[in-house]
Amino acid sequence: MPHIALPPDQPGIRGAMAFRPETAKPLNELVEVLLRGPNTLTSGERELIATYVSYLNDCYYCQTCHGAVAAAYFNGDENLVKRVKADFQHAAISEKLKALLVIAAKVQKGGKSVTAEDVANARSHGATDLEIHDTVLISAAFCMYNRYVDGLGTTQPRDEAMYRERGKILARDGYVAISKSYIPAAAATR
Amino acid sequence: MPHIALPPDQPGIRGAMAFRPETAKPLNELVEVLLRGPNTLTSGERELIATYVSYLNDCYYCQTCHGAVAAAYFNGDENLVKRVKADFQHAAISEKLKALLVIAAKVQKGGKSVTAEDVANARSHGATDLEIHDTVLISAAFCMYNRYVDGLGTTQPRDEAMYRERGKILARDGYVAISKSYIPAAAATR
Repeated sequence: MPHIALPPDQPGIRGAMAFRPETAKPLNELVEVLLRGPNTLTSGERELIATYVSYLNDCYYCQTCHGAVAAAYFNGDENLVKRVKADFQHAAISEKLKALLVIAAKVQKGGKSVTAEDVANARSHGATDLEIHDTVLISAAFCMYNRYVDGLGTTQPRDEAMYRERGKILARDGYVAISKSYIPAAAATR
Repeated sequence: MPHIALPPDQPGIRGAMAFRPETAKPLNELVEVLLRGPNTLTSGERELIATYVSYLNDCYYCQTCHGAVAAAYFNGDENLVKRVKADFQHAAISEKLKALLVIAAKVQKGGKSVTAEDVANARSHGATDLEIHDTVLISAAFCMYNRYVDGLGTTQPRDEAMYRERGKILARDGYVAISKSYIPAAAATR
């Protein structure tokens, strides 16, 4: 039961965004740039970072939704997503992404946890300044999205099939395009 | 010393935003709507929420900058800002704002910390659903901004006069307008 009167037919962040289109607009534009904008990290890699941080924050909706998007990018490989959450150091991902996940996990705890050694290690595996910047901001942003979704007590259906289908659509069409289907149009363009 | 090559003449989040104009745009638009958009909470009250959350996250740059903006809205009353940080239950603010600060502090710990009782208490002091929504999102958003600023190891000068002057300008002109002075224009409009 949500803490405020959110639209009952929209789960998770969609209900919160439909309630407040004025903030939904920059929230969707931010996640679009971070996870789908031009980048030397693939969208699949960035979705794994978002999923892992959402898992650390124990946000069911976000980790399941973004885990499904990540799986969609990796040819439906849901085991890869599970492995990253459980033990990313032994997952089938690059050493660079492992080093970036270490940084993301530090940011989830608090920005001051990131050390010069964490950054040097990522750089030694080929991470660029922009990749390090985006990793920090993806983790920080999901510390926001997770708190937003859980802090309002949004509806979070336990329905894996729903997230799987949603993940495919989000991987194909993106966050800004999809948001037009559930955010009132007039308010969104104010 | 920042973890990545940020512009040396721009402290705190300004350096990070100048480095990455594509994400600076939605980040500035979000804070503009949250802290300065039309609202039954005053901008001063919303800046106090942002300042308090930044204080809980121990982000020097954000708590000092937004504390200065808040003071500017309250006729330069820096003691009010100090009091809110130290012991808001005995500060000269409304009971409604106190109840909203309780919710903000819960969100800072994690979204699931917010209880139905916290929300009912805010409502008993006159808080609307939109005010509760925005309090949750302001707190969540500053959990992002604080992690972004500290996670990149940005420069954070200990110079109270600088923040005081900046606070007056931000209270007058806002975040989006000011951002044009330090974010490369071509990239920001991409």
